[in-house]
Order: sequence, then structure tokens, then C-alpha cells
Amino acid sequence: MKLIRFGAVGKEKPGIQLDNGTRLDVSAFGQDYDEHFFGGAGIADLRKWLVSNEADCPIVPNATRLGPPLCRPSKIICIGLNYAKHAAESGMQLPKEPVLFFKATSAIVGPDDDLIIPKGSTKTDWEVELAVVIGKKAAYVTKDEAMDHVAGYVLHNDYSEREFQLEREGQWVKGKSCDTFAPLGPFIATKDEVKNPHNLNLWLKVNDKMLQNSNTSDFVFNIPESISYISQFMTLLPGDIISTGTPFGVGLGFNPPRYLKPGDVVELGIDGLGTSRQVAREF
Amino acid sequence: MKLIRFGAVGKEKPGIQLDNGTRLDVSAFGQDYDEHFFGGAGIADLRKWLVSNEADCPIVPNATRLGPPLCRPSKIICIGLNYAKHAAESGMQLPKEPVLFFKATSAIVGPDDDLIIPKGSTKTDWEVELAVVIGKKAAYVTKDEAMDHVAGYVLHNDYSEREFQLEREGQWVKGKSCDTFAPLGPFIATKDEVKNPHNLNLWLKVNDKMLQNSNTSDFVFNIPESISYISQFMTLLPGDIISTGTPFGVGLGFNPPRYLKPGDVVELGIDGLGTSRQVAREF
Repeated sequence: MKLIRFGAVGKEKPGIQLDNGTRLDVSAFGQDYDEHFFGGAGIADLRKWLVSNEADCPIVPNATRLGPPLCRPSKIICIGLNYAKHAAESGMQLPKEPVLFFKATSAIVGPDDDLIIPKGSTKTDWEVELAVVIGKKAAYVTKDEAMDHVAGYVLHNDYSEREFQLEREGQWVKGKSCDTFAPLGPFIATKDEVKNPHNLNLWLKVNDKMLQNSNTSDFVFNIPESISYISQFMTLLPGDIISTGTPFGVGLGFNPPRYLKPGDVVELGIDGLGTSRQVAREF
Repeated sequence: MKLIRFGAVGKEKPGIQLDNGTRLDVSAFGQDYDEHFFGGAGIADLRKWLVSNEADCPIVPNATRLGPPLCRPSKIICIGLNYAKHAAESGMQLPKEPVLFFKATSAIVGPDDDLIIPKGSTKTDWEVELAVVIGKKAAYVTKDEAMDHVAGYVLHNDYSEREFQLEREGQWVKGKSCDTFAPLGPFIATKDEVKNPHNLNLWLKVNDKMLQNSNTSDFVFNIPESISYISQFMTLLPGDIISTGTPFGVGLGFNPPRYLKPGDVVELGIDGLGTSRQVAREF
């Protein structure tokens, strides 16, 4: 099943996207895609409900804005330097254990919303990433148990301001949390839709030029390793997002580096998870 | 006004604490202390409601557990090294601009809940901190505007696992986000209750021995500077917590360092914000 949310900013309603691309309004089901939905039997219940109600669901016009395909989660945990070639281009060593950082959930927007280049930014950069949506509370889980805690997968652009991230005092969070820096979607593909999350092509273009083009088979730490690892340090709640890192080809890695300017068009996609598109603009 | 929440974990109800210490159940007011409450006219409306309803509010027995005095916020932003003597004891230079890091909101617990020492931890440490509760959305606010965005203040113990924070790969978040690492409370004092947040004594004892004892007049960056600064990098939402850093006297700073073990009793307080008490135990 492909979960979407659609409508005006802050007033999104839940929907699904059928395999033929048709989008249906499922707000009559009565639950939005939040911690309660993912942590309870939400996905299974929605599937059951659709058997008898799908024909009555209103069609969502294609021109309708897509919002992020889930309500604001408790946290976005990102894994840094999780593709060997990206670590090299960032001038950083391959980590011996996962590098973790947070992104503010206030950065979440819909998949095709504008990217707002923050005030004072000269180094706004892109990062296509496979994000995992947690489906069950996870504390101290083993690698073997980890995949039982996954609800699904979603396309994420982990926008990053490199000066804020790397040249200001302290921690990366300053360069990761600006508003609009976390477009999620177009949809969450439930776990059953993704046969092998460790063999998905992912790519990103700026102004129609392919700049990132890799495969999740290049992960340094795979998904069960990452979930198990994170759960040793904090409890993952249903709906939480783990963003699994970005491959080679970010702006920071060019010589000289190249960053986004107003009017640039960023398009990205992952096998089976659709595509998204953001136009950069000034604040 | 002093806002409390009380009752079993996950089932807390809103209340207030009167100046004579009596605690009243205000759940009949109909709003919990969440983003909507702080961002709307919640505090003013509650005050008005109490004029005609206080006499009918049930008294909360003193033995009732206190929960965190607000619902889970979108984020906890912490300021690192914000007292000169603490930066020195951590072996770190005084920052030229605020150092920011996040703490997972899943770490939030009530003021007197047990501290759970995480599995594998040998360096669990304490940090008494003055935390600010945001009352109005803040993006790109100036120092002059910043205090208009404050709803109130609350006592926070920013527990930290120093090995997870400093000796594992990457960012501090690993050592800051373990469950129970963010006891908040006993209450939120609304802004009008705290005449000068930049002149408050704060202290922390372990097993009755005073280990931190300082005053917020020693801040490197004061509250309006911090709010204005953070709001250049991300939008602060109503209910968000800014923890303003800890003074001299954490376990890491002792020679040799000293950390918490099961059975240790940690007590802390800030002028006008009450006291809290956590007993350390193993997972």
C-alpha cells in the first residue's frame, strides 16, 4: 500500500495511491498517519477497511498538493557517511560505527514543496536518501528483530547547509534543521511493497543533470544494523524516521563545491518510492 | 501560574500548583499543555477559567506522581558550554557563538521518575539546567523580540552519557537521548512568575553532596541571544524546549571523573522553579 497525505499545508488529509497512480481520499477511515496509526494496527485496519470502502473513496485530483505522507514524528534520526564514496567526497573517514544526527521535525514538508534557501546561506546542498518509517516501538532490539519494527519506506531529500553544518560552532544540527530541509514523499510504501530495501537505485538531478546515482547495496551499515544500533541509545517510536544516509554526488564534493541558488530545480527518486521535485527559492 | 501534569505515565492530566503548594486538577478546562495550548491563548484562557472554576477543581493528593509539565514538544534544543567554568572543566574552549545540540523528546520523564542508567553505560552524568518553554512560533526573531516568544521556565536535568556522547563516532546526540535522560519539572512557571531569569541560583546534589551550585548570571549567551540565534537556523514551535546549558560541577569535570551508579540519589533545583529528585537504577 502507498500512503499519501494531500491538501493545504497543515490541513493535510490521509489518502492512498493505487498502483495505477490514482489517488484516493481515505479520510473517512478516521485515522491520520501518526504514531498511533503506525504503532497500532493502522496499516492492517486500513487495508481491511478498503476492501469494503475503496469504491466510495473520493478521487484526489492530480493537481492537489501532496503533503508529507505522515504526521510530524517524534524524531528524524539520520545516519551520516553511510555510503563509502560519500564519506570520501566529504573528506571524512569511513565510520567504525554509525554516525547519528538529528534533523528538526519542523523541517518536514511535502515532496514537491519549494526549498527555501535560508537567510544568509551560501552553501545549501542536496542529499537523496532512503528513509525508514518505524512501525513498532524499538528499544534495545537485535539485528534479527529489527525489521519487525519497520512500517515502510519513503523518499527523503536531506537538505544541508554546509556552512551552518561544518563551519559554525559545534554540532551538525544547525545545518540540517532549516524549514523545508526535509521533503518526504511522495508516499510511504508499506514494507511489503519493497522486496529488498538493500538493492534500490536512488538518484538526484539538479536542473536536469544527474548528480547522484547509486544503489542502497553500497550501504556501510544496512537497515537492521542501523535500527538495532540506534535503539541502544534511544527508543524509536512508531512513525519515527530513520534516514539512511546519502551516496556520492552532493554539492560539497565537487571541486569547487557547487550549491543551490534560487530557481534551481532538484528532482530525485528511488526505485519503487516515486520521485519528488523541489524548486529552490530565497526566504 | 505554575503548570503541572500528574498521574500515571502516558496518562497525565493537566493541573496547576498554587503558591501554598496545593495542586489542583484542571482537566475540566479541557486542554492539555501542548503546542496548541502554548501557541494559542492557552495560558490566558486558563487563568480566566480559574477565576470562576478554581473552587471546583479537585485537589491532587501530594503522593500522586508528577509527569513532565507539558506534552511531548517538537524538539528539545540544548545549548552546550554556556557557562564559562563548565566549558573549562569539559576541556573545551568557550564558544564564539552558541553550540547547539538536540535531545530526543522520547527522553522526557517526570521530575521524580527514576533515572535509568542505559545498558552498557559507565559514564552517566548529571547537568542541572534552566529550560525555556517557547510560547509563540519563532523564525528569524531579533534579540529584542525574543522574550515575546517565551511562555515560561522549567527545571531540567540534562543527563548525559559521556562515553556515548564523546567517545563514539560522531555527534553528541547518542549520549543525550537515552530514555529518562530529560526529567522536566516539577512545574512550568509562566514567564510572569520569574522576574529575572538571568539571576537565578541553580544547584544539584548527588547523595546529599552539593556538586553544582551556580547562577544563571554566568551565562555566556543569555536567553534572548539564544532564542534569536536558534531561530536563524530552525523554526521554534510553541511548547519547544530550549535548555540553556549547565554550570560547573558535572561528573566529567572531576579528577578522576565520577559517574552515577545504581542507587545514587540526584536532587536539583532552581530559584522559583522548585526541585526534582531522581534515583538512578539499572535498565
